[in-house]
Amino acid sequence: MAVKADIQFMQRALELAARARGKTSPNPMVGAVIVRNGKIIAEGYHRRAGEAHAEVIALKKAGSRAAGAAMYVTLEPCCHTGNTGPCTRAIIDSRISRVVCAVRDPDPRVNGKGVARLRRAGIRVSTGMLRREAIRLNEQYLGFHRNKRPYVILKLAQTLDGRIATATGDSRWISSSESRKYAHRLRSEVDAVVVGMGTVRADDPALTVRLVKGTNPYRIVISQSLAFPRSCRLLDDNSDHKTIIASTEEAIERFSHRRKRGSLAFWTIKKDKGGLLNEQDFIEKATAFGLRSLLVEGGAGTATSFIRAGVIDKYVFITAPKVIGKGISAVGDLKIRKLTEAVHFEDWSFERFGGDMVFSGYPRRDGK
Amino acid sequence: MAVKADIQFMQRALELAARARGKTSPNPMVGAVIVRNGKIIAEGYHRRAGEAHAEVIALKKAGSRAAGAAMYVTLEPCCHTGNTGPCTRAIIDSRISRVVCAVRDPDPRVNGKGVARLRRAGIRVSTGMLRREAIRLNEQYLGFHRNKRPYVILKLAQTLDGRIATATGDSRWISSSESRKYAHRLRSEVDAVVVGMGTVRADDPALTVRLVKGTNPYRIVISQSLAFPRSCRLLDDNSDHKTIIASTEEAIERFSHRRKRGSLAFWTIKKDKGGLLNEQDFIEKATAFGLRSLLVEGGAGTATSFIRAGVIDKYVFITAPKVIGKGISAVGDLKIRKLTEAVHFEDWSFERFGGDMVFSGYPRRDGK
Repeated sequence: MAVKADIQFMQRALELAARARGKTSPNPMVGAVIVRNGKIIAEGYHRRAGEAHAEVIALKKAGSRAAGAAMYVTLEPCCHTGNTGPCTRAIIDSRISRVVCAVRDPDPRVNGKGVARLRRAGIRVSTGMLRREAIRLNEQYLGFHRNKRPYVILKLAQTLDGRIATATGDSRWISSSESRKYAHRLRSEVDAVVVGMGTVRADDPALTVRLVKGTNPYRIVISQSLAFPRSCRLLDDNSDHKTIIASTEEAIERFSHRRKRGSLAFWTIKKDKGGLLNEQDFIEKATAFGLRSLLVEGGAGTATSFIRAGVIDKYVFITAPKVIGKGISAVGDLKIRKLTEAVHFEDWSFERFGGDMVFSGYPRRDGK
Repeated sequence: MAVKADIQFMQRALELAARARGKTSPNPMVGAVIVRNGKIIAEGYHRRAGEAHAEVIALKKAGSRAAGAAMYVTLEPCCHTGNTGPCTRAIIDSRISRVVCAVRDPDPRVNGKGVARLRRAGIRVSTGMLRREAIRLNEQYLGFHRNKRPYVILKLAQTLDGRIATATGDSRWISSSESRKYAHRLRSEVDAVVVGMGTVRADDPALTVRLVKGTNPYRIVISQSLAFPRSCRLLDDNSDHKTIIASTEEAIERFSHRRKRGSLAFWTIKKDKGGLLNEQDFIEKATAFGLRSLLVEGGAGTATSFIRAGVIDKYVFITAPKVIGKGISAVGDLKIRKLTEAVHFEDWSFERFGGDMVFSGYPRRDGK
């Protein structure tokens, strides 16, 4: 079969997988197509955690026509029994003769064992087709399994000259309405959004998904002071019980004396030698809570702390074509003295989004 | 004749014109093609000031075949006698029957009179085809005539987070070698490059065109202190007599006591009420000197002064995908308190250039 056709089938499987973006956590997004005589005869994708896997949906649609056909699937089929039976079992039973995977599943219960199981059953299996695209699609899932901690995205909206607000604190609106939609989509794709107290005080954000369809993530305020304003949406509008407060033991105790804890969740974070909140401990708490991905939305202080802690997996800078000069800088002191010590990116791209430029980059791991 | 073909002929004329980029000042770039029966029979472009005009070159090539043909020219033909005779005369004599221009020539000696002359001779004339492209091509020339002062481009090389150097002053190299080439091309297209003393002291720049072919522009240092380092290329390597020093009367006098004036040129700049160099007066001196375009290359202080003076016609920000945090900001205090007061752009674009992003934008005139 022509390589070009192979790629088109895998491309289609990736498209199907992406339909469930933001809905599958803690599972990955997966798409599958079944091909017979060069034609797609069945398709499927994993719609949300707890529901059927892509492979099983496609096989069900194909029925007896699956015998002797090829399956293109964006991730190695699972071989363990979770909410659903193992996909490898379903594939073998259906007498599929060839399986093409984009990328291995790093989940320790699978991680090569799925491919091995299929091969033992006499099925031809190849992996790696459109691997790069498949990795990008599931970067959060794969990153979580690689690092055993949530995948952390930093998103900042800045001016062309690198400011997130004027000197007097005005930040509404730096970015265009289209890129605010983009920001809401980012929110809908992660398990939790993280902000510092500066942002709470300046913007009183709701941190919900409103401009696009999608599920609201958890809302985490990380702050040493817990100096919340008297009225503030994150505390006042918590009917979904998704606001989490991360601070020191003392600050949480003080907070509890002054205000109702109500439906709020609290994470006690250790302090650094310098007396600051320890981001690594924060990340451990987030991991223990079961979060697979975090979106750090700022402000500058919070962004800077996370960059310095070396935990940012992806940077998203929304740059508005505006110049304001002196103001609040997007990123604070990283203790960088030489340009060679800068955060460099091993892979990056930028695109126009509405009236703004959106940069997405993956930092090099050798440096900061 | 089909509109599509018309556009292709004008496109070709624009391409021809652009071949002389950086070589025609104080003249515009102009290209012309002569078309007969839907085919180009002759082409020409203005190679440099003092040499033949595009129209005349094309007519010469066409010879007697020009009679009854159409001419596509990127700028309104001239009707005055300069170094060369009026193009309108040559066009009329050649019995061209139709002339299509992209844009009017704002030179007060032409400015509609060229078109009128041709029409009086019975030639059909239309203007405005690919006008936008023709304006961009000659933005410096057209800007000079619109504002009666040099066209001012601000170019800064910054990190993603808006820094031009680390806190310790390290700025080599923020941008990639490809975009440094781009910066040299910008230099080759202007009459003069302008820097402040901070840049002289930090980088000791030569401000010459080395990475691409082209003519070296004048090199202007604008500084109140004239605190040149003991050894510095702009003073030491001035065999082409192109270094200009712009400062206060007192500073120039002090400088003359301490160092040889040699082949240096001096501009005495008035002071503001606040005691700072007056950028408007600087611009007047540059106009009087005969400069048609200036490229302000920084540093931050110089860039900020020119932005505040409202004289920047085009912004070019070369952004390297690096994050360094606290450092020297690209733009300093613009006294902007509200985002609505920011410099906005009425037209902007960005493209990847080597390892960097290059933003080009034209500021809105209603705001700053």
